[in-house]
Amino acid sequence: MTNRLLLKGKDVANGIYESIIPRIQVLKEKNIIPKLQVIIVGERPDSMMYVRMKKKKAESLGLITEIKYCSSDIGNTEMLELISDYNNDISIHGILVQLPLPIQLDTNNILDSVNPNKDVDGFHTTNFGSLALNQDQYGYFSPCTAVACLEFLDHYEINPRGKDVVIIGASRVIGLPVSLLLLNRRATITICHSATKNLKEKCQMADIIISACGKAQVIKGDWVKSDAIIIDVGINSIVVEEMINGELKIKKKMVGDVDFDDVREKCYAITPVPGGVGPVTIAVLMKHLVKSAELYYPTN
Amino acid sequence: MTNRLLLKGKDVANGIYESIIPRIQVLKEKNIIPKLQVIIVGERPDSMMYVRMKKKKAESLGLITEIKYCSSDIGNTEMLELISDYNNDISIHGILVQLPLPIQLDTNNILDSVNPNKDVDGFHTTNFGSLALNQDQYGYFSPCTAVACLEFLDHYEINPRGKDVVIIGASRVIGLPVSLLLLNRRATITICHSATKNLKEKCQMADIIISACGKAQVIKGDWVKSDAIIIDVGINSIVVEEMINGELKIKKKMVGDVDFDDVREKCYAITPVPGGVGPVTIAVLMKHLVKSAELYYPTN
Repeated sequence: MTNRLLLKGKDVANGIYESIIPRIQVLKEKNIIPKLQVIIVGERPDSMMYVRMKKKKAESLGLITEIKYCSSDIGNTEMLELISDYNNDISIHGILVQLPLPIQLDTNNILDSVNPNKDVDGFHTTNFGSLALNQDQYGYFSPCTAVACLEFLDHYEINPRGKDVVIIGASRVIGLPVSLLLLNRRATITICHSATKNLKEKCQMADIIISACGKAQVIKGDWVKSDAIIIDVGINSIVVEEMINGELKIKKKMVGDVDFDDVREKCYAITPVPGGVGPVTIAVLMKHLVKSAELYYPTN
Repeated sequence: MTNRLLLKGKDVANGIYESIIPRIQVLKEKNIIPKLQVIIVGERPDSMMYVRMKKKKAESLGLITEIKYCSSDIGNTEMLELISDYNNDISIHGILVQLPLPIQLDTNNILDSVNPNKDVDGFHTTNFGSLALNQDQYGYFSPCTAVACLEFLDHYEINPRGKDVVIIGASRVIGLPVSLLLLNRRATITICHSATKNLKEKCQMADIIISACGKAQVIKGDWVKSDAIIIDVGINSIVVEEMINGELKIKKKMVGDVDFDDVREKCYAITPVPGGVGPVTIAVLMKHLVKSAELYYPTN
């Protein structure tokens, strides 16, 4: 069907980049180059990959990224000292602690030690409070993946006001903040999670579904309305068998929470995985870094 | 029907008082008398009444309440100075700014100027962030009326985990914080408000309804399931005609958001108005004051 929409992460991300490139130029003319300080603990392959992707994108925009690699046995005190140094360094506009952190570290305490004005990931308690209270005048930061979901709606001119939105997952990274962002836009939100009953029936009534449950392909074609809009935040690795040159090979495949092939023709609009929310999340991070340089550190 | 429940505010409040009276005694033995500092601006009759009720209850428990009456034309600077003084006064354990404030005052800024550890009303941005992130270890305060709703569930041993809860109203005073408290207890929450469509149908599917929309008697008998639990936070004044000694008199009556007479026999449990959430809200405030004295100001 021609009137169905594939919501493309690349298009949304490019829209964001187009909006920030001239702002970066204005900052450069004032000799300000936004700088992101990343802290990565240990050598998780997924974390290493995400950090590399962020650095590469920042550099392509003329922004600076420094990466601090910490040993996986680093202690809380050392982490807090490191962050304190970065808080005090006026050349740094954004501080990003790559999650998850190893078990010996107090994640809440570490995230709350970042200066809220440099908290481009939006995980600080104060930023969460400002999000909950919709205190726009404070120019707070919200978690990038949650903002990315809203960027999809804005790019495709979908107004969530009054729409019934089902959010699957209630984490601080995505489910909770995207719920609050949507509530601030006057959507009617239903937050579902592992204790929720009748999830399928709830999805069947939703105008918009945002899934971040981290379970591969659980949302099927008969879960969705024909006019539903689906944003799939899940990134799950599954094993598939594939015939290559007449031989059966077993390989890994990245899929979302939504069974894309089954759902695509039954809903109105959907994001793919990969190529959906992922690239937009990075674009939002860059936008936050530029915002920090503009709003909080307008001189260097 | 005998198995229907009337959820009595007085019983819930008394349970709270029973739990805090020995704690007040322990504090007294350390020469600590919890003290609440109330600030009231102008002479709104409803605000004056609420403040009097809080003072009376505090005194009956042996707690101290000081009331600062401010002129209705007080400015932001003067308010902030006043609060700063109270923040620095170690004999004060809780600061309560009676809302609403007159239009010339910046309510957000004033509420955020209260030391979060003395914010017994739970309106500070940091306390909201802690609530959203469920940071129990911080001993944060949440808005009293929202906590009061949870006190009803606890008193009557109703576990919200996995239950479908419809919250009507998304204000910072009640709708939003009670939603977050219930989410932290693993309920499935749907937050409704003036932009919500099909509110009746949503209520018909709810295991628990918490109404704080401030519209008199909108929730009717055919809106609720027979096993629904209804907490009515609304306080609305309506005009009724009544025959007194053969004469038709017009008088004011206080009612909730729920049409009590119509709904009572059709649901499983319901709070009355008056006599429901109101008295429990005051009990929660007293509990918060005691908690502040125990947690943050254990020496005087």
